[in-house]
Amino acid sequence: MFNIRSLFSTLALVGATTVASAASWEALPEKAPAPADNPTTAARVELGRVLYHDPRLSSTGTVSCSSCHNTMLGGEDNRPVAMGVNGQTGGRSAPTVWNAAFNATQFWDGRAPSLEEQAKGPVTNPIEMGMKSWDDVVARLKQIPGYQAAFQKAFGNGDSITMDNSAKAIAAYERTLITPNSPYDKYVKGNKKALSEQQVRGMDTFAESGCVGCHSGPAFSGQMEQGAGVFQKFPMHDNGFFEAKYKLKKDSGRFAETGKEADKHMWKVPTLRNVALTAPYFHNGTVKTLDAAIKVMAKLQLNKDLTAEQVADIEAFLNGLTGTFPEQKMPHLPPTPGKTFN
Amino acid sequence: MFNIRSLFSTLALVGATTVASAASWEALPEKAPAPADNPTTAARVELGRVLYHDPRLSSTGTVSCSSCHNTMLGGEDNRPVAMGVNGQTGGRSAPTVWNAAFNATQFWDGRAPSLEEQAKGPVTNPIEMGMKSWDDVVARLKQIPGYQAAFQKAFGNGDSITMDNSAKAIAAYERTLITPNSPYDKYVKGNKKALSEQQVRGMDTFAESGCVGCHSGPAFSGQMEQGAGVFQKFPMHDNGFFEAKYKLKKDSGRFAETGKEADKHMWKVPTLRNVALTAPYFHNGTVKTLDAAIKVMAKLQLNKDLTAEQVADIEAFLNGLTGTFPEQKMPHLPPTPGKTFN
Repeated sequence: MFNIRSLFSTLALVGATTVASAASWEALPEKAPAPADNPTTAARVELGRVLYHDPRLSSTGTVSCSSCHNTMLGGEDNRPVAMGVNGQTGGRSAPTVWNAAFNATQFWDGRAPSLEEQAKGPVTNPIEMGMKSWDDVVARLKQIPGYQAAFQKAFGNGDSITMDNSAKAIAAYERTLITPNSPYDKYVKGNKKALSEQQVRGMDTFAESGCVGCHSGPAFSGQMEQGAGVFQKFPMHDNGFFEAKYKLKKDSGRFAETGKEADKHMWKVPTLRNVALTAPYFHNGTVKTLDAAIKVMAKLQLNKDLTAEQVADIEAFLNGLTGTFPEQKMPHLPPTPGKTFN
Repeated sequence: MFNIRSLFSTLALVGATTVASAASWEALPEKAPAPADNPTTAARVELGRVLYHDPRLSSTGTVSCSSCHNTMLGGEDNRPVAMGVNGQTGGRSAPTVWNAAFNATQFWDGRAPSLEEQAKGPVTNPIEMGMKSWDDVVARLKQIPGYQAAFQKAFGNGDSITMDNSAKAIAAYERTLITPNSPYDKYVKGNKKALSEQQVRGMDTFAESGCVGCHSGPAFSGQMEQGAGVFQKFPMHDNGFFEAKYKLKKDSGRFAETGKEADKHMWKVPTLRNVALTAPYFHNGTVKTLDAAIKVMAKLQLNKDLTAEQVADIEAFLNGLTGTFPEQKMPHLPPTPGKTFN
C-alpha cells in the first residue's frame, strides 16, 4: 500500500505545500460505499443498468446516460464537450462515470452532493437529454411493463416508479463501475514489476512536482480523504499563451453556481483514474492530448516548466492508472409492444 | 413446422393471388447462412461487435451503428426517422438489425445486395455517421492499437484494416443477431399452448386476409424463399385519407435509386419478426402504433377493411413473433491512450 521512497521524496521536496496524506500511495478499493438509504442491491443495480442505457429517457429517444458517459469507452465520450439531443452542445466536457462513486461531490463544479442527485440533472437539461420534466419521464416509465416489474423488485410494491427511485437505481449501478487492479494498484500492493522503470520515475516526479498535492488518495482526486467542499482554483497562475490557446478562464466554474466571488474559477479536483482514456482534457475539453494536459497543469497550477522527459515519465505513470473494467452484460431495454414514445 | 388448417384456409380463401409456399408456417432458423468469402468466425464476430458499437466511426464520435439499430431495443431506435450526427434526420426509418441476416437485400429499397455492402453505407452518409470517406475511417482505426490486433486476428496479418474487412466483421456480427424461439416458433414446432386462442385466430386471419402473400416464409419477409429482386408496390391502392395522414407516397422508394418508372413506390417487403418492438411503422415511420399499421396495410395493400376484432387478433399474433434475444456481453472499445479523434 505504500511506497516509502516516494513518500520521503515528496515530503522532502514538496514539503509544507502538500497535505501529509498526499504521498501515501493507496490502491483503489474494489467496492464503493453506499448511503444508508440506498444499499447497492442486485435489483437496484440491474434496474439502474437498464435505465442508464435507455435512450427513451431523452426527448428524442437518442440520448442515454451512456451516450456521454460511455461504459464501453473510458466512461465518457472522448469529445471536447458532450452532445445532447438534436446535436446540441454545452460548455463542459463529460466527466467519466468510472469510479465516480468515489467522488465526494459530482459535476465539474461539485454542485451535486451525491450520485443520486447528479443522476437527476441531465435528464431534464434542455441541451442534454431534453425531457420537459421528471413527471414526463415517470409517465413514460410507467407505460413500460418491464419497468413496472423492475421498480417493484428494486423498491417494493406500490408507487415505486418515481424520480427519486430512478436516481437511486442509476446511482446503485454506478457504484459498481469501479476499475481496480491497474498496474499502479498492483505495484502499491507489492508487485514491483507491475510498473516499468519509467512509470516509477513518473510516479516520483508526479509526487515531487506537487501534482499529488491535489490529486491525492486512492482515486487521485483528493476527495476520498478530504471529502466534499474541497475545491481548487484553476488556473492558479495566469498565462496568456495557454489562455489564448485553451480558453480555460472563459468558464467561471463554481462561481456560476454559487455567485460567490471566492468561487470564481474554483473546480472539483477530478480523479486521474483512467485519465489516459478520457482525452480531450479539462472542463472545456480544449486540450487534446495527455502530454499537453500535463504541461498545462504543471505551468498553470504549479508554475513549473517540466522537461520533455518529465512529461513523458508522468504520462507513462498516468497510463499505469488505467484499471480493469468489469465485464458487463448488455441490458435488454424493456419494450412498449406496438407503440413508441417518439 | 406446419399448420395444416391455416394452409388449407389460405389456399381456399386467398387462392391464386398468393404464392403456394406462403402459408407454410416455418420456424426461424437458429443460424444465418454466410457467404463463402466471409465465414462467421468467432474473431470476426467479436471484432464486428466492437465496431458496431463504436461511435468513433462517426464524425462527431456520437453515432455508432447501434445508435440507430439498437441491439438493446428491437434492433432499431423507435423513432420515425433516424437521427445521425449533429441531430440531423433523413426521410426513412431505421430498419431492425435483428434477423437482417435473413434479408435477401438490405435497406428499405433493397439497394444493397448483402450485409457487407449495407455496412459500408451509413458510415459515410453525411446525415448518418458523417465520415468524409472510408479512407478517413481506416486511418482512424489504424491509430487504435486494439483494432490493429483484432483485425489481424480476424483477417490475418498484413494490411488487414480495410473498408472491406470492417464491413465483413460487422456483417459477421450481424449474422449472430438472430431471435428464434418466439411463441410462434414454439407453436409451429408443436407446442400448441405457445400461442393463445386469440393469437391462433390472428394467425388464420393473417393468412386468410392475404398478408401472407408477401409476408411469407420463416422471416415473414418473402425473401427467404423468393430471394433478391422481389419488391412490392406500397401503397398498392390509393387512399386520400391515409395519404393525407401518413404521406406514404412522398418517397418514391426504389425509383429514387434506379430511376426506372417501374420502380416507383416499390419497396422490399420487411420482416415481421419482432415487429411489435419496432414502432413507429413503415419506411417513413409515420404510423405510430401496430394496430394502426395493420389497418393501413389491409386497406392500402389488400383493399380490405378489417374489423376491430380482426385487427386485435392479428396484432396478438404479431406479438407472438417477438423472439428470444441472445445474451450479449458489452464490448470494451479499444482505447487511444492519451488522445482522441474529436
